[in-house]
Amino acid sequence: MIETSRPELLYLLAGDPAELAETLSEMRPADVADALNQLSPEAAAAVIKVLPFDVVVRVFDDPEFEHRHEVFDKIDADTAAPIIEAMSGDQQADLFRELTETEQQRLLPSLDSSTRQSLSLLLKYSPKVAGGIMTTEFASVPANWNAAQTLAYLAQVGDAKETIYAIYIMDEQRRLVHVISLRELVMVDSETPIVDIGVRRTPITVTPQTSREDVARLISKYDLLAVPVLDEGGHVLGIVTVDDVIDAMVRETTEDVQKLGGMEALDEPYMDMGFFSMIKKRAGWLCALFLGEMLTATAMGYFEGEISKAVVLALFIPLIISSGGNSGSQATSLIIRAMALREVTLRDWWRVASRELPSGIALGAILGVIGITRILLWQTLGWYDYGVYHVLVALTVGCALVGVVTFGSLAGSMLPFVLRRLGFDPASASAPFVATLVDVTGLVIYFTVAFVIMRGTLL
Amino acid sequence: MIETSRPELLYLLAGDPAELAETLSEMRPADVADALNQLSPEAAAAVIKVLPFDVVVRVFDDPEFEHRHEVFDKIDADTAAPIIEAMSGDQQADLFRELTETEQQRLLPSLDSSTRQSLSLLLKYSPKVAGGIMTTEFASVPANWNAAQTLAYLAQVGDAKETIYAIYIMDEQRRLVHVISLRELVMVDSETPIVDIGVRRTPITVTPQTSREDVARLISKYDLLAVPVLDEGGHVLGIVTVDDVIDAMVRETTEDVQKLGGMEALDEPYMDMGFFSMIKKRAGWLCALFLGEMLTATAMGYFEGEISKAVVLALFIPLIISSGGNSGSQATSLIIRAMALREVTLRDWWRVASRELPSGIALGAILGVIGITRILLWQTLGWYDYGVYHVLVALTVGCALVGVVTFGSLAGSMLPFVLRRLGFDPASASAPFVATLVDVTGLVIYFTVAFVIMRGTLL
Repeated sequence: MIETSRPELLYLLAGDPAELAETLSEMRPADVADALNQLSPEAAAAVIKVLPFDVVVRVFDDPEFEHRHEVFDKIDADTAAPIIEAMSGDQQADLFRELTETEQQRLLPSLDSSTRQSLSLLLKYSPKVAGGIMTTEFASVPANWNAAQTLAYLAQVGDAKETIYAIYIMDEQRRLVHVISLRELVMVDSETPIVDIGVRRTPITVTPQTSREDVARLISKYDLLAVPVLDEGGHVLGIVTVDDVIDAMVRETTEDVQKLGGMEALDEPYMDMGFFSMIKKRAGWLCALFLGEMLTATAMGYFEGEISKAVVLALFIPLIISSGGNSGSQATSLIIRAMALREVTLRDWWRVASRELPSGIALGAILGVIGITRILLWQTLGWYDYGVYHVLVALTVGCALVGVVTFGSLAGSMLPFVLRRLGFDPASASAPFVATLVDVTGLVIYFTVAFVIMRGTLL
Repeated sequence: MIETSRPELLYLLAGDPAELAETLSEMRPADVADALNQLSPEAAAAVIKVLPFDVVVRVFDDPEFEHRHEVFDKIDADTAAPIIEAMSGDQQADLFRELTETEQQRLLPSLDSSTRQSLSLLLKYSPKVAGGIMTTEFASVPANWNAAQTLAYLAQVGDAKETIYAIYIMDEQRRLVHVISLRELVMVDSETPIVDIGVRRTPITVTPQTSREDVARLISKYDLLAVPVLDEGGHVLGIVTVDDVIDAMVRETTEDVQKLGGMEALDEPYMDMGFFSMIKKRAGWLCALFLGEMLTATAMGYFEGEISKAVVLALFIPLIISSGGNSGSQATSLIIRAMALREVTLRDWWRVASRELPSGIALGAILGVIGITRILLWQTLGWYDYGVYHVLVALTVGCALVGVVTFGSLAGSMLPFVLRRLGFDPASASAPFVATLVDVTGLVIYFTVAFVIMRGTLL
């Protein structure tokens, strides 16, 4: 494995620029990007100036180069334009999304018209859909060519294409009729007409609005290296390649994990994020959860009389409501993931509910038995005195646990369905969200059970 | 997009087997696998019998075919052996991991010795490391060949290789000296010696023990289509391809989401999992969390005197401890993800702590202000009577929130570091785990603040 050679790079920076350029030229673009990420934008811009043009392009084409928009700030428009023009379409769009409005206005006029056109096409779409992550540099050939002609063409234009492993065959109206792979192409006789290569099936395609998760699912399911994005007329607008999909999957997972933790997705590395932007991303959900959780204070208010009569009941409140939250959190994360994998769809809610009901009862019973044992054991061993009615206290805790855990499992498993039905991301059904939902109900269940069991004794 | 053609398939099943075979032969292997997944193993085995051999192999080679091990149960060893032998090495290993010991013993003797050898190599490794997900069918050529020889060889053996897009060049001792891509190969003159193609760098390689996350990271970082797995002597044992990595990433995310929900990873689709195995996976963590949470009952026991003197304090217990849990859950999910992306390493713990301390104070202050406002508002509007000392109660709640949220953010962000340091998966630092940790401390903070503020009045 290659390590980032930061010390070496800094050493070289102090030395001969030509020597530095030579060393960097031999490194892989992702490693040069890594090294430049460690430098200030000014220093990185200075390094860029001495590097050969094709190395610069490959480095700026690498999404690993996190600070590239800051580095572009330091480069004049005339130097920047040819670099941007030589970048691949999806990376141009990525770069422009990172630039400020002012920067965009500074750089746009220097770009040639074809780059401006491709950029305006891609920037129409969100980076969460196929249209926003596609690249316009794909290899396409007319349907009347043969294998040898196609190979010769690829050898000539290959450098300018994002990939030549998928070759798109067009009819005279430039509509997609067939897709072959370079693998299939090199395995046939050179005279073979390209339309006869491979199995003729309706090609797997997406629309510009297909979500990046769905693109990822198609690429993963059919083991594709790229999938074409078609307009309504069947013309290829661009392709989404497997490496874009991997990047999209990594971002998607990051967002999901952050949402599951009960906050907005950060969109930036944790360490790079400013203090106030981070507080903003976290405070929103935290306040919403806090306002929801305030209902527990209201609920507790209703039971203040019971608590003052039987303070022993208060001792188990955190234990009981947290068990509901925990079982809910398990159920919700199971369903969120099953939904993401399409193992479970909206209409399966009833099947899920009828699985979670017995699961909740079983899990609640297990916790109930442990809870009862704990109370009776502490009483018997004299570690704590739960009063004359300790058996009733134990029974109340045990029964409440069954109720609360069952409710938690059901509520936790149903919440993602409700969110998706309402058009929200099911991953927003975070553990804290579920816990807040379950806490109020948990209190009501607990005090209701207590009232039934202890009426005439403690209450 | 292709839909699973289940009704059509069932209709065809009743009809002519030859017609069925023809229809299925035209479908993509992943779609045939989808269709077979809907059938009972017996019915699927019956369909397999009438399908052409090469279609059968491609379907069994597809990890989308979930029930393949059950279908193999229904096929006699002599029919099964050629299918298994023709499957790719990684899928053979996957299949054998799913088979029972008895089934393995039934099928193994019928396999040829090269398949048995490759299987025993791959099964030595866990499917969580490169050695367990690699395939042994890669394209390698001697270093003294030229481009034309290599292309001719690939055209001949391409069908039997997992991929021919990466070509591994070996010296006379069969050690890896260079890697070229098919793209580079088709773009050079046919007389070019293959060692002169592309940039000569130390190839990116992994060992059989490299974790699948690290393999995924390398493939994603360097936009590779495959990465070679080398033994200690520098010989290529196999390659891990990008589609294996995508599958591994999906599995990894599933495990992480389930762990974050506070449970063991399921290893099976939610809907396919048996009731008791699911209870087992969920009960373990639920009981562990319950036992931890029991400490809240102990802590509450210490404050029973305070609660009976000031029942009003009990009303805010769920609100306060849940706020600590929520802020902890946010912090822990941020750090888990930053660790998974290598944005944060073990030695960054101090930088993280010094970010989380002010964040926690700020977030706690926001919630504290809301909490104080809520109590004073309800009191002023006459919606609830918090007694004579309601200002002190409000102050206690506000100060406790600052303390609890700060502690939650710090504890939540440090837990993944502690877990990783102890050799556990940081993703086990689930929201429920953090909440349990924070709840006991939250109670202690709350009652300590109350004691300081209310001594001489309510307490």
